[in-house]
Amino acid sequence: MQDRPLTINAILRHGTKVYAGSEVVTWTGESARRATFAETSARAEKLAAALRRLGIREGDRVGTFAWNNQEHLEAYLAVPASGAVLHTLNIRLFPEQLTYVVNHAEDRVVIVDASLVSLLARVAKDLRTVEHFIVVGESEAASGLGNSVLRYEDLLAAEAPGFAWPELDERAAAAMCYTSGTTGNPKGVVYSHRSTYLHAVGLCMANSFGFTEHDRTLAVVPMFHANAWGMPYAAWFTGASLLLPDRFLQAERLARFIETERPTISGAVPTVWNELLRYSETHEVDLSSLRIVVCGGAAVPPTLMRRYEERHGLRIIQAWGMTETSPLGAIAHPPHGIQPDEEMSYRTKSGRVAAGIEARIMDGERELPWDGAAVGEIEVRGAWVAGGYYGDDAPEKFHDGWLRTGDIGTLDAKGFIQLTDRSKDVIKSGGEWISSVELENELMAHAAVLEAAVISVPDERWDERPLACVVLREGAGATHEELREFLSIRVAKWWVPERWAFVAEIPKTSVGKFDKKVLRARRESGELGTIHETAPPPPPKR
Amino acid sequence: MQDRPLTINAILRHGTKVYAGSEVVTWTGESARRATFAETSARAEKLAAALRRLGIREGDRVGTFAWNNQEHLEAYLAVPASGAVLHTLNIRLFPEQLTYVVNHAEDRVVIVDASLVSLLARVAKDLRTVEHFIVVGESEAASGLGNSVLRYEDLLAAEAPGFAWPELDERAAAAMCYTSGTTGNPKGVVYSHRSTYLHAVGLCMANSFGFTEHDRTLAVVPMFHANAWGMPYAAWFTGASLLLPDRFLQAERLARFIETERPTISGAVPTVWNELLRYSETHEVDLSSLRIVVCGGAAVPPTLMRRYEERHGLRIIQAWGMTETSPLGAIAHPPHGIQPDEEMSYRTKSGRVAAGIEARIMDGERELPWDGAAVGEIEVRGAWVAGGYYGDDAPEKFHDGWLRTGDIGTLDAKGFIQLTDRSKDVIKSGGEWISSVELENELMAHAAVLEAAVISVPDERWDERPLACVVLREGAGATHEELREFLSIRVAKWWVPERWAFVAEIPKTSVGKFDKKVLRARRESGELGTIHETAPPPPPKR
Repeated sequence: MQDRPLTINAILRHGTKVYAGSEVVTWTGESARRATFAETSARAEKLAAALRRLGIREGDRVGTFAWNNQEHLEAYLAVPASGAVLHTLNIRLFPEQLTYVVNHAEDRVVIVDASLVSLLARVAKDLRTVEHFIVVGESEAASGLGNSVLRYEDLLAAEAPGFAWPELDERAAAAMCYTSGTTGNPKGVVYSHRSTYLHAVGLCMANSFGFTEHDRTLAVVPMFHANAWGMPYAAWFTGASLLLPDRFLQAERLARFIETERPTISGAVPTVWNELLRYSETHEVDLSSLRIVVCGGAAVPPTLMRRYEERHGLRIIQAWGMTETSPLGAIAHPPHGIQPDEEMSYRTKSGRVAAGIEARIMDGERELPWDGAAVGEIEVRGAWVAGGYYGDDAPEKFHDGWLRTGDIGTLDAKGFIQLTDRSKDVIKSGGEWISSVELENELMAHAAVLEAAVISVPDERWDERPLACVVLREGAGATHEELREFLSIRVAKWWVPERWAFVAEIPKTSVGKFDKKVLRARRESGELGTIHETAPPPPPKR
Repeated sequence: MQDRPLTINAILRHGTKVYAGSEVVTWTGESARRATFAETSARAEKLAAALRRLGIREGDRVGTFAWNNQEHLEAYLAVPASGAVLHTLNIRLFPEQLTYVVNHAEDRVVIVDASLVSLLARVAKDLRTVEHFIVVGESEAASGLGNSVLRYEDLLAAEAPGFAWPELDERAAAAMCYTSGTTGNPKGVVYSHRSTYLHAVGLCMANSFGFTEHDRTLAVVPMFHANAWGMPYAAWFTGASLLLPDRFLQAERLARFIETERPTISGAVPTVWNELLRYSETHEVDLSSLRIVVCGGAAVPPTLMRRYEERHGLRIIQAWGMTETSPLGAIAHPPHGIQPDEEMSYRTKSGRVAAGIEARIMDGERELPWDGAAVGEIEVRGAWVAGGYYGDDAPEKFHDGWLRTGDIGTLDAKGFIQLTDRSKDVIKSGGEWISSVELENELMAHAAVLEAAVISVPDERWDERPLACVVLREGAGATHEELREFLSIRVAKWWVPERWAFVAEIPKTSVGKFDKKVLRARRESGELGTIHETAPPPPPKR
């Protein structure tokens, strides 16, 4: 067989040639700007030529600090296909984290959206390796970035059409993304061309996202977060048009974008879908163009799925993964051969192991059965799973070649993963595990509850006990006693928390997940406010 | 990223674990025998153990001489996953070709269906490297194979459950298939684990065959022919049940199988669909379960597509490929954004270049534009395209790393290939090309014509001219003058053949394609019968 490398270059060539007429649509809040794949590809060629002229060579890191838009996509194509490494910077990182990751990756260039220049300028002087900032759009604050500030459009305008894309090794680095761990500094995951290619093809499989040319892909999940779940590459490979919301992520703007551009497929974290749902409760929103809405990055509350189905006839499909898994690890399409009333019990699981990923469930060194009952840590391996971090082998994260996901849960006979907790969020009470995720899902099914997060607190008698942090809906009222009663008929009696805090918001991480680390810190420092306590629970039944 | 190999072992593990309950159904002519993926996998383990016990080691060749059935599938899994090489023998080869390929590949074992024992026995004594014949089922003729004849079920029964599958290099050989060239001996294509894996995933893409667990896959195309188009592996990877017709390929038996087992997806050469259509014209046949019917291996007559659509509401999707391309090269799903009445003009093309395959169109050293007009040889490359043959680099078949397909045609702006001829079948008349395929398609649209093949004959004035060989439908009559008139309003005047032969059948190759080599030989030896001649044509318009 021919020794053809699996590279982003192959994806770029295929989309450019075969799907020249497919569209890249960037939302401007009220209207859209458009380019065909052929036009976008021609601009990517110029970007590659401009970076080459700036001295960027194979293996050099090029950062992006940007929203989801056409120029970011051009960087997605040009940087890796020219042999450099695309380093997508999370715009929501704290300044010290941002400084750390740019310096750690040794980014030589950062491409920055005009609207984000001020944010980046705060740390610009600390970015030791950055030689040039390339600003996309007009920004009066650009001088704040330092001396070498270049304009994106000027650079492209100076280049002749065409670029001789190199032939790359499929194992060469293509992109990197830092994941903010719970302890210590962020860790960099380095995606290879091979892993990115295989992951994109994985998304194109009919039992996954199933991209085709007939699709219009609304990528809400940020391009700075695990490569927007790989959707840009999968869409490009199959000619699915790309709809990019830029910075207009508020429910109203997003709803308008959806109505105007009629996406068929979309991916976002639960928070985004939750906000869109709330908006649709008071405004007319037409979501009928969507055929598949993938939701991941955090457990999807079943009530969210039910409400979308009731109100919009829209099926949310849950997926599971992490930065280290590119991110697709599992996707919860209901299996074949079940009754319609069983579907929801599968769709509310975290996902079914994707083709290309292997999973196992471990209790220390012991592999547990796929019986839907045995609880252990999920470990995965596969050609698009990280085997280490940039400059850090992190042996504690790996186990005989398998990635320790840090997710605790079960696997059933059909390969469905059900997560019950992050290993760091686990509540072990009287020697038994309590699932914070299940408690949160049940609580969020209560009409008065907008959001709920359950954390572990130390307990003299039971070692650990759950504390429920609840955000009530505007205008709604519910006491902790009511909520306890609500839970008591839904979960085991000894799971029901006796400690309750009503808070204004659940803190979120830079990628929109509940930040339980912050919640735990707030509890310790007394910042959570009044904590209602009731009688201790009965002992767990063994 | 983890260095996980892309192997059939990974496919085997995934299907076995995640889709344990999917089915393998083998037709027995009247009813079906069934096994789950879990059961089939357990038997594959025993087969691997038995082969190991017989002394088969990594890299050794194991032949199969078999229909499409469960045991053949077991060999598809066990042989490559154990590190040996599956050599699928074409049961329709002439004895001397069969002998040649077994000896050339140095098969150490051949697994043979009881119903095919007599066919194999004719050459058994000439198979120099075969140490054991393993007979599937009961055959009284088995002793004709020689001394070491083993029974498949006995071998499996002797093994304990479980087999320690090795970790294989993804570039190791997994399977081989000989392609009978037009000249010289057959040439062996060696598929690697990597190419087989990537090809299977290619078939699972939503814009390709799009296998999912909800599918039931009727693999009519023989498992001895380009790995049944890779469908067994794609189906296994996604949990799509496999329906295997064994030797019951006659239209009536096949129709019964379809009605009973309700496939959703199927692949076969045009001849099979043609016979099934004819059968359905006089019998009630329910084909409503099929969602996609892929047809390839030879140009699909548009009339065949139209008649299926009219009579059965069934869409035939044309695909193009060859043994050297694993075989998926292109598939003719209609593109996005066209009018319904334009669909047929795309669906009748040979196919749109598949993701994972790159194509170009060459006139010698000059690359021609993708304009749907420029005619040249199609060249392809990709990770599942052959880069040589077993024991034969065949440099004449390659061009700067691209495979010369030997197919002549055009490529359009959307990546659709339209073949006009095999390079060896090309008719160049007065310096201009005449497409034999187009003439054949037009002729087969005539109500009286069952099959038509057009070959080139030498001509004093025009160098070459077309000769039409026509098989009339039973009871139908048409003169060559009528057919000339029929053609004259459908193709350029100078394309209309002035030489006509009415024959009882068009000879077919071992894989069911029109064998024009035989037709040309018959013409030269005068075996075609009367050749009707009319006046020479007008000169081509330039």
